[in-house]
Amino acid sequence: MKDIVRNNAVKSKPRVLALSGGIGGAKLALGLYRILDPWDLAVVVNTGDDFEHFGLHIAPDVDTLMYTLSGTNNTELGWGRAGETWAFLEQLKRLGGETWFQLGDGDLAVHLQRSESLKRGNTLSTVTADLFHHLEIQAHVWPMSDQPVRTMIDAVDGREIPFQNYFVQEKCEPEVSGFRFTGAGDALPNASFMELLEDPCLNAIIVCPSNPYVSVDPMLAIPGVRAALKACHVPVIAVSPIVGGEAIKGPTAKMMRELNIPVDPLSIARHYADFLDGFILDDADAHHADSLEIPTLVTRTVMQTLEDRDALARDSLSFAQRLKADKSLNTTSAKRAS
Amino acid sequence: MKDIVRNNAVKSKPRVLALSGGIGGAKLALGLYRILDPWDLAVVVNTGDDFEHFGLHIAPDVDTLMYTLSGTNNTELGWGRAGETWAFLEQLKRLGGETWFQLGDGDLAVHLQRSESLKRGNTLSTVTADLFHHLEIQAHVWPMSDQPVRTMIDAVDGREIPFQNYFVQEKCEPEVSGFRFTGAGDALPNASFMELLEDPCLNAIIVCPSNPYVSVDPMLAIPGVRAALKACHVPVIAVSPIVGGEAIKGPTAKMMRELNIPVDPLSIARHYADFLDGFILDDADAHHADSLEIPTLVTRTVMQTLEDRDALARDSLSFAQRLKADKSLNTTSAKRAS
Repeated sequence: MKDIVRNNAVKSKPRVLALSGGIGGAKLALGLYRILDPWDLAVVVNTGDDFEHFGLHIAPDVDTLMYTLSGTNNTELGWGRAGETWAFLEQLKRLGGETWFQLGDGDLAVHLQRSESLKRGNTLSTVTADLFHHLEIQAHVWPMSDQPVRTMIDAVDGREIPFQNYFVQEKCEPEVSGFRFTGAGDALPNASFMELLEDPCLNAIIVCPSNPYVSVDPMLAIPGVRAALKACHVPVIAVSPIVGGEAIKGPTAKMMRELNIPVDPLSIARHYADFLDGFILDDADAHHADSLEIPTLVTRTVMQTLEDRDALARDSLSFAQRLKADKSLNTTSAKRAS
Repeated sequence: MKDIVRNNAVKSKPRVLALSGGIGGAKLALGLYRILDPWDLAVVVNTGDDFEHFGLHIAPDVDTLMYTLSGTNNTELGWGRAGETWAFLEQLKRLGGETWFQLGDGDLAVHLQRSESLKRGNTLSTVTADLFHHLEIQAHVWPMSDQPVRTMIDAVDGREIPFQNYFVQEKCEPEVSGFRFTGAGDALPNASFMELLEDPCLNAIIVCPSNPYVSVDPMLAIPGVRAALKACHVPVIAVSPIVGGEAIKGPTAKMMRELNIPVDPLSIARHYADFLDGFILDDADAHHADSLEIPTLVTRTVMQTLEDRDALARDSLSFAQRLKADKSLNTTSAKRAS
């Protein structure tokens, strides 16, 4: 097991690509980051949760990944920075300001630095790389797009609720009827992400156990992404965020119930069916494995300790490795047949 | 001696008007605030120091006054908020951000709340009143203008340096040759301030011991202010910021030397000569009193303790009271003569 603090390694092309949302996804991304060599990991992050607050560009999933990979995440709260202080928010409250979105003192520096850099004309990708560089993270982390894509919740009560308002302000209480990703149609996927999908150096793509509807779908809604994943020469595997009929974290299961989708790993696999080569589900759901028409791996997916993260990362990679051999074979056969 | 924490008093018209810059002026303003009844004090504050930083409107003198009057000023640092924390700035530094201007975690909330309110179309006067209200300050505090006036330092080396860069970034080191107040010509003085000057309720105007060149002159540079002070029916008195050939605080004496102005109270009195009815100088400068052609009060002007602030406030007010009787008499005589 490698320590997160590494010597300065030469930036190289990534070999493993992860698709991640916030907290759940970042757990597996951390495992991958820990067991892979420096710069071998690339993560494409959902920015559908991004929003403007006080004129600042806030990118919750990017930040969660940044704090997680740099080892500065708050394990007590489960989100935000370790040792965060709240003097800003307390004073803002005293002054009658808007305090529904929790802005920690150090966290605020991230939002401000990002916003200032964007104002100077830098892309979100450049700004993100710069922030990760300063926190000495040796992984490629790419926002899914430099253009704004904004997740909107269609509520049963007829409202269209911006994601952060739904998630933070309304505590995921409104019943959902669907989702929209405003701006997705006009957005371009991150260029390095798209290039990597065709790069012979790439070995595996792992869809982290993130919320499929509001963390992964925003990426898939960007024109070209879904097709490129489908066409990719390496195995794409997904880890189920649903374990034993519940989500480990967040509103995934609640959303599924509201959308009349069975709350089980099969629904997740079905959701990604068109581009998935393999699926990982938890021991608790072993009985579902036979119902799937693609290769499956049944293992422990619940990540409580650091060792859990490492183990699932290792399992995912060796599963992908096995699938890769098959996929190459199939691709060669397909080529021969054509 | 009254305590600063007061019962909620009905907002009434002010009887005493103070003109103030930052730290030095705020000391006397605090004394006045403490000895006067709630809402009897109005303070016009210099906003020539204001600047935009990270898209935030920062008003250093207004904030100094706000922290001072609310009893939340940092007596250790001599500026900023009591018990301030610096997590934001530390993280910003880590991220490679600009950290030359010290932004405390709680202080940042003030700048952000002000900026948000300005963005919503409120005037600086309204925003200021709102901030002071939330900190339960029962004094009228008015920024000198709602329009931007920006103090620029003309340096001997030929540069024109914005005030905060001169003051904070360059630590007042550049030799000055003059000052300019960009925008002053197009600015309107605060309306309540101008109305008060003609109000029969007003008893006295006190120019606090602030820097005449960069704290008081920006106010005087706004069209109409100087003439209105001159025409005012109540005595205008000034307290010398120069004591024994030095300034208690800040670059006043250094500036005077660079401008070849004798560093003594006489120069200060001369600077305000056209509208001044009385002048207060320190015991240490008693020998200068006879050289002045206007009424003087020689007293202790150095404010170290709270009691010093109260005492100087009391001295100023009773001095003004005596001058008022004379001024009324003179005005009556003048009216008779005309």
